Amino acid sequence: MTDPRKVRVAINGYGVIGKRVADAIMLQPDMSVSGIADVVDDWRIRLAAEKGYRVFGATVEAVAAMSNAGIATSGTLADLLADSDIVIDCTPKNIAAANVPTYRAAGAKHILQGGEKHALTGHSFVAEASYASAVGGSSTRVVSCNTTSIVRTLTALKKGGLLGSARGTLLRRATDPWESHQSGIMNTLVPESRIPSHQGPDAKSVDPDLDVVTMAVKVPQTLGHLHLWNVRLTRPAEVAEVLDLFRASSRIALIRSDAGLPALNSIKEWMLDLGRPHGDLYEVALWEDMLTVEGDELFYAYMVDNQAIVIPETIDAIRALCGLEREAASSIAITNAPLGIGKLVARPDRQADAP
Amino acid sequence: MTDPRKVRVAINGYGVIGKRVADAIMLQPDMSVSGIADVVDDWRIRLAAEKGYRVFGATVEAVAAMSNAGIATSGTLADLLADSDIVIDCTPKNIAAANVPTYRAAGAKHILQGGEKHALTGHSFVAEASYASAVGGSSTRVVSCNTTSIVRTLTALKKGGLLGSARGTLLRRATDPWESHQSGIMNTLVPESRIPSHQGPDAKSVDPDLDVVTMAVKVPQTLGHLHLWNVRLTRPAEVAEVLDLFRASSRIALIRSDAGLPALNSIKEWMLDLGRPHGDLYEVALWEDMLTVEGDELFYAYMVDNQAIVIPETIDAIRALCGLEREAASSIAITNAPLGIGKLVARPDRQADAP
Amino acid sequence: MTDPRKVRVAINGYGVIGKRVADAIMLQPDMSVSGIADVVDDWRIRLAAEKGYRVFGATVEAVAAMSNAGIATSGTLADLLADSDIVIDCTPKNIAAANVPTYRAAGAKHILQGGEKHALTGHSFVAEASYASAVGGSSTRVVSCNTTSIVRTLTALKKGGLLGSARGTLLRRATDPWESHQSGIMNTLVPESRIPSHQGPDAKSVDPDLDVVTMAVKVPQTLGHLHLWNVRLTRPAEVAEVLDLFRASSRIALIRSDAGLPALNSIKEWMLDLGRPHGDLYEVALWEDMLTVEGDELFYAYMVDNQAIVIPETIDAIRALCGLEREAASSIAITNAPLGIGKLVARPDRQADAP
Amino acid sequence: MTDPRKVRVAINGYGVIGKRVADAIMLQPDMSVSGIADVVDDWRIRLAAEKGYRVFGATVEAVAAMSNAGIATSGTLADLLADSDIVIDCTPKNIAAANVPTYRAAGAKHILQGGEKHALTGHSFVAEASYASAVGGSSTRVVSCNTTSIVRTLTALKKGGLLGSARGTLLRRATDPWESHQSGIMNTLVPESRIPSHQGPDAKSVDPDLDVVTMAVKVPQTLGHLHLWNVRLTRPAEVAEVLDLFRASSRIALIRSDAGLPALNSIKEWMLDLGRPHGDLYEVALWEDMLTVEGDELFYAYMVDNQAIVIPETIDAIRALCGLEREAASSIAITNAPLGIGKLVARPDRQADAP
Repeated sequence: MTDPRKVRVAINGYGVIGKRVADAIMLQPDMSVSGIADVVDDWRIRLAAEKGYRVFGATVEAVAAMSNAGIATSGTLADLLADSDIVIDCTPKNIAAANVPTYRAAGAKHILQGGEKHALTGHSFVAEASYASAVGGSSTRVVSCNTTSIVRTLTALKKGGLLGSARGTLLRRATDPWESHQSGIMNTLVPESRIPSHQGPDAKSVDPDLDVVTMAVKVPQTLGHLHLWNVRLTRPAEVAEVLDLFRASSRIALIRSDAGLPALNSIKEWMLDLGRPHGDLYEVALWEDMLTVEGDELFYAYMVDNQAIVIPETIDAIRALCGLEREAASSIAITNAPLGIGKLVARPDRQADAP
Repeated sequence: MTDPRKVRVAINGYGVIGKRVADAIMLQPDMSVSGIADVVDDWRIRLAAEKGYRVFGATVEAVAAMSNAGIATSGTLADLLADSDIVIDCTPKNIAAANVPTYRAAGAKHILQGGEKHALTGHSFVAEASYASAVGGSSTRVVSCNTTSIVRTLTALKKGGLLGSARGTLLRRATDPWESHQSGIMNTLVPESRIPSHQGPDAKSVDPDLDVVTMAVKVPQTLGHLHLWNVRLTRPAEVAEVLDLFRASSRIALIRSDAGLPALNSIKEWMLDLGRPHGDLYEVALWEDMLTVEGDELFYAYMVDNQAIVIPETIDAIRALCGLEREAASSIAITNAPLGIGKLVARPDRQADAP
Repeated sequence: MTDPRKVRVAINGYGVIGKRVADAIMLQPDMSVSGIADVVDDWRIRLAAEKGYRVFGATVEAVAAMSNAGIATSGTLADLLADSDIVIDCTPKNIAAANVPTYRAAGAKHILQGGEKHALTGHSFVAEASYASAVGGSSTRVVSCNTTSIVRTLTALKKGGLLGSARGTLLRRATDPWESHQSGIMNTLVPESRIPSHQGPDAKSVDPDLDVVTMAVKVPQTLGHLHLWNVRLTRPAEVAEVLDLFRASSRIALIRSDAGLPALNSIKEWMLDLGRPHGDLYEVALWEDMLTVEGDELFYAYMVDNQAIVIPETIDAIRALCGLEREAASSIAITNAPLGIGKLVARPDRQADAP
Repeated sequence: MTDPRKVRVAINGYGVIGKRVADAIMLQPDMSVSGIADVVDDWRIRLAAEKGYRVFGATVEAVAAMSNAGIATSGTLADLLADSDIVIDCTPKNIAAANVPTYRAAGAKHILQGGEKHALTGHSFVAEASYASAVGGSSTRVVSCNTTSIVRTLTALKKGGLLGSARGTLLRRATDPWESHQSGIMNTLVPESRIPSHQGPDAKSVDPDLDVVTMAVKVPQTLGHLHLWNVRLTRPAEVAEVLDLFRASSRIALIRSDAGLPALNSIKEWMLDLGRPHGDLYEVALWEDMLTVEGDELFYAYMVDNQAIVIPETIDAIRALCGLEREAASSIAITNAPLGIGKLVARPDRQADAP
């Protein structure tokens, strides 16, 4: 892990996102995990140590607790930062704000996650939309899972000159599987009390030109989010034209309901069958056979894996801040290859063309 | 039950809808249940008998099975029709089509439910929109729960001259509580494989002028549906103006998320606390504090109780076909009173006016 | 509500239990609700006022908040206690402990719920088992829903001289419907981390002679609990003999899976169809066609409605403490009548006897 | 895949079990998949082909459909059997009965799954209990997930001379994730209508000496089963003694609720974090900190992954029928190694010993 030719990446917070980011980094050719820091001391951290990650306590107390639990530590977060080129903050929502001064004092480039405010870094990141402005910077914020999917899809339409106004309804998973024994909702639906919901404005933190409004509802399942969109195009268009735009995007997978993928659980089973770690879906999985155009109105739906979609974005953000690649496309290609992104084919083309 | 001044109504199918229609009829001043017909012979039919309804077998076999189960019957469906002025078909989806010839042969006015095709009767019913054209007719179709809510709300906007194009996303409950031990979906979301979903066109069977497109998703809960709408208005408007239109409608209840009603289960608890039978919500329960207008765009969300919303519509349809009232408003007022519709106040006015 | 011939009962806490107790009291001939006290000020309390209950703030702050919300109050809890003969504490778990000194200082007889410790009152109540020792007392604790069902069923076996050792597995609903938008578990099972679970010892607080051990699991549904039991009898017995013992108990309803009641949701639908408030099941609903005896071992399963089962017990506890009836059987009969307990027949006897 | 030194295994039915068996076989040193046969033609079979498995149509029609879908096939099931030493039937429940004559006519050794009847093969298999009697045989039935777990655990107690009578309550997942968009139960519990449930007698098909009775309930989740047991021991015993017996068994993993594994979802997350395919749990995961002994009564609970637990058993059954190993222990060791079974440590020993 001390290959001098690789960027040394610290992971602060080894939870749902942190553990995925760590494993994804280890698959990349130009970066390596310098260590992970956390505050818990159970099997999750033990497993990190068994995988070969150096473990640090996020606090002095955490170091003691880990040692007491028989987990060998390499010091505190400060020690980890001193031995790293950049830190990825994967702590729970709103915790990162308190960590930023620490990162700054240590002179550490840092990446925050989407639960944090844009103002903390002044830059919000989605590879397809804002890579260039992150190159060489000191910090950025990888936007939330929902916002990432919105920016990916709308950017694809924008690049084709078709994007007018976008109105989306977001069905949000109620909690993540790993904490579903102590949180969640049951046999109900909970609409967000405010319309528009925050995801629309959040997308504008990446691209201020977007005309996007969202409504959101919490639904009783844990697999991921489902978005349904109504987009006014700049002109009438053909379905094939729109599909080509989405197909040209780097992290949108076109899937088919009529090819055995009619629901979130089907897609998850597919990812598990593919052997992806945790059955992760890094792509926006968009149903091509549901997509409809009526005049200048476009309708479509897709699944977002809230645990996985930001992982490749975070890898790209590391590469941008550290100046490893100047071009978004170059970084994306490097990131995608070992994660298997870009290889999903639900059905051969000649099938897709059939009635 | 043989009051000569009351219209005699037969109920064919004593299930989720049939049992509610029967009980609601008995609360009305100008109609009475002449009997219920069904094919099952368990506690559900026994309970109908204990309530005092005359029980008929929908078939000769059903009569035998009921008798064998100790349930006294008054004959077959044919006997029931002979003793009724009108029949409400509440059989499961797609069964009614086969019953229509029977009703016609018996010369019986008949009302079908929304699972059936418009063409079977040539008339689709929502009291606020199509009462007049049903008056004195021989048959009509009370449209589905989803469609009823769409027509109610959009008609309110149309009456105010504000309705442009309406785009809705419908979250549909996966199954009804009473059959949730043998059907349903689990920890997933299932989008309808076609966009637009059928509810938009179905709304046009009631009012062909509506410009409405819907997308639908099946969600893992049993309480009811949740709709989220984006409506382009004919002009910019104020929130208060829109709320007044909804308030003026006869079966839309304005509720508040910030007044203890943030989710479907809260609304259901409220209905149960009110002592409504089965906790039924006959109204469209629309969140006034979520409703937003941005320029000429209107956004709102509401709950639809799929087991209950069509009950008052069915009562009105009886009154229309039988010519008991010429005016929709008159019938609606009579129907609403004993059901408690129009009395829901989530919060006093001075509170609603507060910021 | 000031009938001098009726015991005046204060309800402190108008939640899931409190509102049910209040409504049940109003159906009884010898007691009346003197008022309800609470701390919230939304539709739930407004509804209490609309029903005619006098509303008191549990605290001075609550009085102010209620007034601010337009709800007329009659004073504080102290005022309510001064005007009552007994108070039923229906506050959330562990709150009652702090209220007991207040009740004692006011000289108020008081009844606590099963979330509290036995030691707080020194007496634990289930009508069939411990009515006599509560007569004329100053306080008691109506045990929890689970414990109530255990004591009811085991007492029936004990009265027949058949009870040896009882080993039960309890499947507990994860949260109540009214708060299922903010708590719960999703797509998982959570066993209680300790065996035996607390319900077994708790049953012994009512009857120290019981030989009972329980294990418990939290399951992802909101309708109620399901218990499965393996009881070693004092001797081999016939199924009919055991069923007769259960049938002789005052609040056990024998139901049949093969008569349309195969699951919790079916039973709930039945209660709603019966017109019971909230669809409440006051009885232990025990499947007679599942009950099996093998040698001296008895196996059976039943549903417990955790929101309803303690309501009739609480009514009896009022009657015991206030000395209205000396005999359990007399009180139970009076309580049961207006609640409809004892009238449930899933299937006529001759059917039950059929193969 | 044509290594002459390896046993050639055909997989008939590439579903939940079939795909797992295939992948597990490919990890073994002494066997190889000769091909998979199925009737569907979507992404699932395409993926099998992409993994390198030879694909066969289970019927002539299936061959045509697969070809039409662009999936290259190598013939029909008959062709596959002709090129195999043994076939594993992984078709849905009750289908295998019709396949057995085909297997016999082809002279193919065959293994059925637990949904089938014992009489079809006359031998029921769990490696720890009945390996010896399967050696060199022509067919066997790997018992169901539930029964496998029961035999594994009770056999461990039996080997220690502690097993008296065992009484278990089984909480069964309602459906598998991959079909949860079209089947399942919602917000209810469904007890099996008969006590005892079939799993107890089924365990006796493996070991007739077992004194075991089970009750079962279907619960609304998809992750797996949870069993709770009350076992009468042949004598009073210490907890440590019982744990040692379970620890000595080859496929029981002792886990701890207090070490971050309190529920089914936690265990599933752990398996996914370990990188196991599909997050599969091959072991019985038994909570050591919940296990209790009171006198001569033992209480414990464990999770069963219904999709995974029979996979290693099936591998052993292949080895037994084909005579690759004479001893159960030898086969189990070979099977376990590449699957990672036996390496699960939820917590270091010194922690487990701590209070």
